Amino acid sequence: MRNTIENTSFHLPEPVIRRLPWYLSYAKLARQKGEKSVSSTQIAHALNIDTSQVAKDLSILKIAGKTRVGYDLETLVETLSDVLGFSNTHSAFLVGVGNLGSALIQDNGLAQYGLRITAGFDTKFEMDGMRINQIPIHLMDDFAFLCRKTHTEIGVLTVPSECAQQVAEEMVAAGIRAIWNFTPFRIHVPEDIIVQNTSIYAHLALMFNRLNNK
Amino acid sequence: MRNTIENTSFHLPEPVIRRLPWYLSYAKLARQKGEKSVSSTQIAHALNIDTSQVAKDLSILKIAGKTRVGYDLETLVETLSDVLGFSNTHSAFLVGVGNLGSALIQDNGLAQYGLRITAGFDTKFEMDGMRINQIPIHLMDDFAFLCRKTHTEIGVLTVPSECAQQVAEEMVAAGIRAIWNFTPFRIHVPEDIIVQNTSIYAHLALMFNRLNNK
Repeated sequence: MRNTIENTSFHLPEPVIRRLPWYLSYAKLARQKGEKSVSSTQIAHALNIDTSQVAKDLSILKIAGKTRVGYDLETLVETLSDVLGFSNTHSAFLVGVGNLGSALIQDNGLAQYGLRITAGFDTKFEMDGMRINQIPIHLMDDFAFLCRKTHTEIGVLTVPSECAQQVAEEMVAAGIRAIWNFTPFRIHVPEDIIVQNTSIYAHLALMFNRLNNK
Repeated sequence: MRNTIENTSFHLPEPVIRRLPWYLSYAKLARQKGEKSVSSTQIAHALNIDTSQVAKDLSILKIAGKTRVGYDLETLVETLSDVLGFSNTHSAFLVGVGNLGSALIQDNGLAQYGLRITAGFDTKFEMDGMRINQIPIHLMDDFAFLCRKTHTEIGVLTVPSECAQQVAEEMVAAGIRAIWNFTPFRIHVPEDIIVQNTSIYAHLALMFNRLNNK
């Protein structure tokens, strides 16, 4: 029995969206173990957060639990995947096929979460026509043409910091609407362009700092 | 002229630490362009943040700017790298040589930021003795022994979610003090163990959600 959702595009506060993948991860795990349902208390305990927080977050998504039974796991997994956008496949172009860029192209895990990198771009002539993990690599010169032709809206930015701003501008000019920025550089783009900054090196700094202060 | 720092282990608030890699990235860029110094206004403008915020953050690090000249770029780069822990090399063991795991092993960029993955571990027998990017892959059975032998204190966790908790416990038992958790699972560890959660899939969810709401 699935709780129907008319519109999976919720306007959710960022802290809520950040917690949802934890719930999804936990729900998938419980389902794998053969469970049929979970309570908000179980989820809260496993994830080290408040029970009321879990109940509140899930109620925003209109996921209803049953008294003494809890949340149906199938519904939970399906709804969370939908809301998080992991059920649909979003195509993306990646620019900057260096270490991190090729690593992401090779990470098939992204596809499970709804992101399919369909092409990589670089300025190095010798990379033109290459394939990594069966994904074609093109010259940056072809970016705008291919982007418009395929209606690709997501750009993954893995270039060196010093090119980040320029490439971001080229992405926007070609019709990219969301940029997943892996560089530590804060790019400037028009207000209607979505920027998601994921600087894994910043997380590294956080970890080193805590380690040194122990 | 370098401002000396007696102790680079500052107890910095997390929001400050998160901004420092941006300053570093900007400072490196300016240095590369041949600049000798930058003002807090220039940094603030480039990064889209408050000038007073930049000045405050840098003063916490005891980096002093000169009136009408600004911050010396060499000092800025060096001090920020030191404070962020990027100047020292920290060895780490990675567990879970799947898509993301091998991607990280292949990402030489991490070394530039002070993290050197010296070995990978997996439960798959066929991986034992393999090398990826010249880094040896061992069986998980050898983790504790090799960890103690090499005094490795950082563990990178890239296993499937369902193994995250168990592997985290094995890491802690073997002497790991900081875990860089790439799984979307919230691991439970003793209080003195540092956990840095980096769920790139959670960032993906944030981006999808904003894209769908446009």
